[in-house]
Amino acid sequence: MTYCVGIKLNAGLVFLSDSRTNAGLDQISTFRKMIVYEKPGDRFMVLLSAGNLSISQSVREMLQVEQLKEHEDSEPITIWNAQSMFDAARVLGAAVRHVYERDADSLKASGVEFNVSLIFGGQIQGEAMRLFQVYSAGNFIEATPETPYFQIGESKYGKPVLDRVLTPLTPLDEAAKCALVSMDSTLKSNLSVGLPLDLVVYDVDQFQTDKVVCIDNDNPYFKMLHDSWGQKLRQVFDSIEDPLWNGGHTDVPLKMPQSRHQPLKKISNPQEKLI
Amino acid sequence: MTYCVGIKLNAGLVFLSDSRTNAGLDQISTFRKMIVYEKPGDRFMVLLSAGNLSISQSVREMLQVEQLKEHEDSEPITIWNAQSMFDAARVLGAAVRHVYERDADSLKASGVEFNVSLIFGGQIQGEAMRLFQVYSAGNFIEATPETPYFQIGESKYGKPVLDRVLTPLTPLDEAAKCALVSMDSTLKSNLSVGLPLDLVVYDVDQFQTDKVVCIDNDNPYFKMLHDSWGQKLRQVFDSIEDPLWNGGHTDVPLKMPQSRHQPLKKISNPQEKLI
Repeated sequence: MTYCVGIKLNAGLVFLSDSRTNAGLDQISTFRKMIVYEKPGDRFMVLLSAGNLSISQSVREMLQVEQLKEHEDSEPITIWNAQSMFDAARVLGAAVRHVYERDADSLKASGVEFNVSLIFGGQIQGEAMRLFQVYSAGNFIEATPETPYFQIGESKYGKPVLDRVLTPLTPLDEAAKCALVSMDSTLKSNLSVGLPLDLVVYDVDQFQTDKVVCIDNDNPYFKMLHDSWGQKLRQVFDSIEDPLWNGGHTDVPLKMPQSRHQPLKKISNPQEKLI
Repeated sequence: MTYCVGIKLNAGLVFLSDSRTNAGLDQISTFRKMIVYEKPGDRFMVLLSAGNLSISQSVREMLQVEQLKEHEDSEPITIWNAQSMFDAARVLGAAVRHVYERDADSLKASGVEFNVSLIFGGQIQGEAMRLFQVYSAGNFIEATPETPYFQIGESKYGKPVLDRVLTPLTPLDEAAKCALVSMDSTLKSNLSVGLPLDLVVYDVDQFQTDKVVCIDNDNPYFKMLHDSWGQKLRQVFDSIEDPLWNGGHTDVPLKMPQSRHQPLKKISNPQEKLI
């Protein structure tokens, strides 16, 4: 499987991906799922991919040569000359559709779904940063201040911490930390998500970044984060009081007055029914 | 959807269920998903159910009258006379299979999968406590010290905290708190899981319990837990250092020496390929 997350903040963008790919439990490999496209001073874009690896690899390959034409005689649009991230996302959608046209029927004949999902974000000179999630049909949605991140792949384990922390005002490095905590929870719970990780942090209006790092088992920051998060989570858990129960004939814990809902009626013989 | 969890500890058993049922997003109802079977001094059993509500309700109904016969002339086994929880789980499996025989073909004709999953645990005089997860086919597995809990329904959001906290040595009320934290994360992330909750805690060798409570929005303990967990989680998050990056020409954060894996190569023009 895969876990990737892309985050758009006022201060910049954060992208994080794992690198485990599996075809069944007995065939596990390492494939990087992030590509950075950079033309310093002009544009900076990052693509994260999940789903069928043959499809996502083809999409990445096609994206380099894909051209959109509005009219017969108009200049073809590529990711390298697009005037907006919206147009660049359209080029990506077209690349997905090209792979669909080429492969979908044969995949279907083999019982394989055409399954790919992508996060694509960045900034082009003259425009604000933008972040998109692109689906198997080549259609896409854009992140907004209310939902400043997208996840693809195994998203559930790592979602709660993103929801608790991220707003457009979150500082960049704090968001990077948040993405790493989210990844840590996912790594712990799903064996098909694995190290190394690729992390890219982009500062707004820079049109390039040096904050690109590959994180593996030996990375001291990630080890510290993993250990601290686990230990401190446990301390927080311990610091919350256990529920207390009345010792007597009432059914309710000391701190749990009975609710307006009926308590469960116990079934104590074969005939009696639950309300 | 549904979220239920059953936990087996040396000290006893904990069962927790939500009560939201939905048939599509526009048809949401409240149905309790827990039943307690109690014959004080002889047996105490709890059943939690998830999946298609018509199936789980039928299974619960059938379970009251289901009889297993080893031979033509042997005494029929019911949940009320079974000598072991294993036999009681077999009776439950037989009830599932009866509903399957009655409904599966018609459901299939309507394009509906025969989908039910159950957690069934308790203790019968003369035996230790046991906890089972029962599948749609009526087959089942039993919890062991290595995996002392089962979840059914929307299990992913609430799994990390269970994995971090639960062992057979966990005290009962701490395990109840852990189940409630697990439920709180699930409630936050999935709208199709909802209050009120049913919580039952059973002390080993008691063959009955008074610790049965229905928890709704007004429950002060659950409110305290929800607020404290959210606030303190945030404090823990803030207490972990953000990653730092070298300002210069290297790509690596101060605390992130480059790994043995290649860093991502950026694509800076249409021809250049990623390694």
